[in-house]
Amino acid sequence: MSLIVQKYGGSSVANAESIKRVAKRIVEARKAGNEVVVAVSAMGDTTDELLDLAHEVAPIPSPRELDMLLTAGERISMALLAMAIENLGHEARSFTGSQAGMITDAHHGQARIVDVTPRRVQEAIAEGAIAIVAGFQGFNRLTGDITTLGRGGSDTTAVALAAALEADVCEIYTDVDGIFTADPRVVPRARKIDRITSEEMLELAASGAKVLHIRAVEYARRHEVTLHVRSSFSNNEGTIVYNPRDGRDENGDPVEEPIIAGVATDLSEAKITVVGVPDVPGKAAQIFTLVAKSGANIDMIVQNVSAATGLTDISFTLPKSDAQAALTALTVEKEAVGFATLQHDDQIGKLSLVGAGMRTNAGVSARLFTALYESGINIEMISTSEIRISVVTRADTVQDAVRAVHAAFGLDGEAEAVVYAGTGR
Amino acid sequence: MSLIVQKYGGSSVANAESIKRVAKRIVEARKAGNEVVVAVSAMGDTTDELLDLAHEVAPIPSPRELDMLLTAGERISMALLAMAIENLGHEARSFTGSQAGMITDAHHGQARIVDVTPRRVQEAIAEGAIAIVAGFQGFNRLTGDITTLGRGGSDTTAVALAAALEADVCEIYTDVDGIFTADPRVVPRARKIDRITSEEMLELAASGAKVLHIRAVEYARRHEVTLHVRSSFSNNEGTIVYNPRDGRDENGDPVEEPIIAGVATDLSEAKITVVGVPDVPGKAAQIFTLVAKSGANIDMIVQNVSAATGLTDISFTLPKSDAQAALTALTVEKEAVGFATLQHDDQIGKLSLVGAGMRTNAGVSARLFTALYESGINIEMISTSEIRISVVTRADTVQDAVRAVHAAFGLDGEAEAVVYAGTGR
Repeated sequence: MSLIVQKYGGSSVANAESIKRVAKRIVEARKAGNEVVVAVSAMGDTTDELLDLAHEVAPIPSPRELDMLLTAGERISMALLAMAIENLGHEARSFTGSQAGMITDAHHGQARIVDVTPRRVQEAIAEGAIAIVAGFQGFNRLTGDITTLGRGGSDTTAVALAAALEADVCEIYTDVDGIFTADPRVVPRARKIDRITSEEMLELAASGAKVLHIRAVEYARRHEVTLHVRSSFSNNEGTIVYNPRDGRDENGDPVEEPIIAGVATDLSEAKITVVGVPDVPGKAAQIFTLVAKSGANIDMIVQNVSAATGLTDISFTLPKSDAQAALTALTVEKEAVGFATLQHDDQIGKLSLVGAGMRTNAGVSARLFTALYESGINIEMISTSEIRISVVTRADTVQDAVRAVHAAFGLDGEAEAVVYAGTGR
Repeated sequence: MSLIVQKYGGSSVANAESIKRVAKRIVEARKAGNEVVVAVSAMGDTTDELLDLAHEVAPIPSPRELDMLLTAGERISMALLAMAIENLGHEARSFTGSQAGMITDAHHGQARIVDVTPRRVQEAIAEGAIAIVAGFQGFNRLTGDITTLGRGGSDTTAVALAAALEADVCEIYTDVDGIFTADPRVVPRARKIDRITSEEMLELAASGAKVLHIRAVEYARRHEVTLHVRSSFSNNEGTIVYNPRDGRDENGDPVEEPIIAGVATDLSEAKITVVGVPDVPGKAAQIFTLVAKSGANIDMIVQNVSAATGLTDISFTLPKSDAQAALTALTVEKEAVGFATLQHDDQIGKLSLVGAGMRTNAGVSARLFTALYESGINIEMISTSEIRISVVTRADTVQDAVRAVHAAFGLDGEAEAVVYAGTGR
């Protein structure tokens, strides 16, 4: 008997009909002889509706109360899902984050899991019941308060449960068939990836692939949880995200490392250029300390070669939503840093090529740059890791760029991919 | 410094605007130097909407999951209320039933409070915060499961908190100005009652007055909590429901016992007559055992004088919703009981006159029957307690009856009462 953890996002449980459909799917897994634990998100737009209400009563709602409010969403979906399963003649028991032992720190709105003690979940499955756990939520033992895990929280709940319960697999149900070599809405010939290492998945998620949240992948990697990302609208096999050990996969087979696993794009970043920075030691440190204190997450950094003037320019990218805070923080300290002006550019796009085989294959960047050059696309910034190359271009050229690169690396499939609408949390 | 527990029903927190209005009201009480604890119901129709969803996924939802689902309602309203208060510059902390220590038995959907351990509420008010507690909900220690208190649950939460915290007063905010001598929608000259004993209030609630739920009044009486029933739409003083001790009220003043405190009506009952019952010992016991086993709550019982035939008729009243079950239970055992036929009548109305002064005043029933006779209203059944007389009449005569009786006992006020729309939970 296998123990399966399944996660269903908001779009999979958007209304009574979808909830009944998901209930059937869960019951099928149970009937196939598995023990089943389910993590579920709030229904469809519930979270957004609750957020709207919060902003109607208070412009800046208290984080503790916001968590109390938002966790009502999963409470509703999990109770309904449990009812729907019981209506099919199988025992089900729903548990809040706190009942399921999802212990977090006290960082409201973005809490991190510090321990998972799923005693009640274990009792439920030992008694033959299907356990339904509220995604996205936990509680802090010290304060006794309810917390939420932030974006991608329900994925993280599922992975953390799978790790604590030593599940055989953690199935992440979503509205696409799995992880694709590129976004199928942009690259029609993108192929579904059958297997990918968690390291590659981490780079793809960090580079803008939205199917899995980076925190969930990190957790799965650290705790060696195998993920199966698949569609709740079909019975197709999805993408297995696995953790190689000593060069072998979860079945003991040697790991195949594709040169390129996939191409991700990201249009959510902006670029700030600090113009005319005195080219003396410590200036970069000064600038990025200011930016970090503003709460901004810096991604790529490029420092231009110093001109004869003794001045240099420093460019960096960061989430668009962090740009204003960073600009303000730098402007306030303009005198102290001694730069000339700030330039803000929110029309950039990032393209990233990810693949573990890159480590041992020369010429990947050359092939990338050639493909972009031949498509007439200008590269503005470059950054690399061991298994990733990212380039920044104009935002309006990114779609052409990803199609060109996808073809140049032989990733195009034979048929067009099927695309579903909507996204889950 | 006084400790005040306030309760706001669903109609008082129906939308963001009402929540902000209630928040202001709570802050005023805090600013006046009081410690404030608030019990709040779910917003407007939330509970009904959740119930509809439940019935969409499962015709007979499991009681445990239904409680899990419905408790999301107060979670939403309490968090929003806490945010709205914090937005006015006062500290607020919301607590679920379980966080507030509302310990109940495991009877899902209709749990009874077995203990209240409001440690976190006490800490919050000791630190100067306003505590907001979810009405209607509790938890069972043995199972660790969430429970709900059933109808009138939020009133009961408020009263139980007031008792456990030894509050000076428990203010029940509603959409009417207090308890009236009769329903002002039926009797325009009904007067607001300034003070009423909990014993009288209990009889009024049991006789159909809907402003306070009978369980909450019972709890207040047993734990000697003083209630103040008032409108959340005005600043008028409402009705004080107090517990006399040794003939003195909560201020040590002698209790004034009005002959008649108020007149209540109830159109929610039906009458069943068991015709042709053998007039031998044990038949009534047999009949009412069957009815009780069907789950019906019997109210009034009348047994006709036995005729020369050796047969008698037994009539009783019960909630309309219980009638079908009782009829079925009796029909199944028709042979065993030996009755001839069953008559079912759902066109009855009940009028009750309540007043502690009745105990020491003769002639109350005579005056009641005279008033009804002079209005041409026929009495079908009569039942009395020490401080109440109830009569059953035709449903369509009840409104005339209550106006006639209200006038006959000198209860009519000088002006017409102001009537608001809507009711809270």
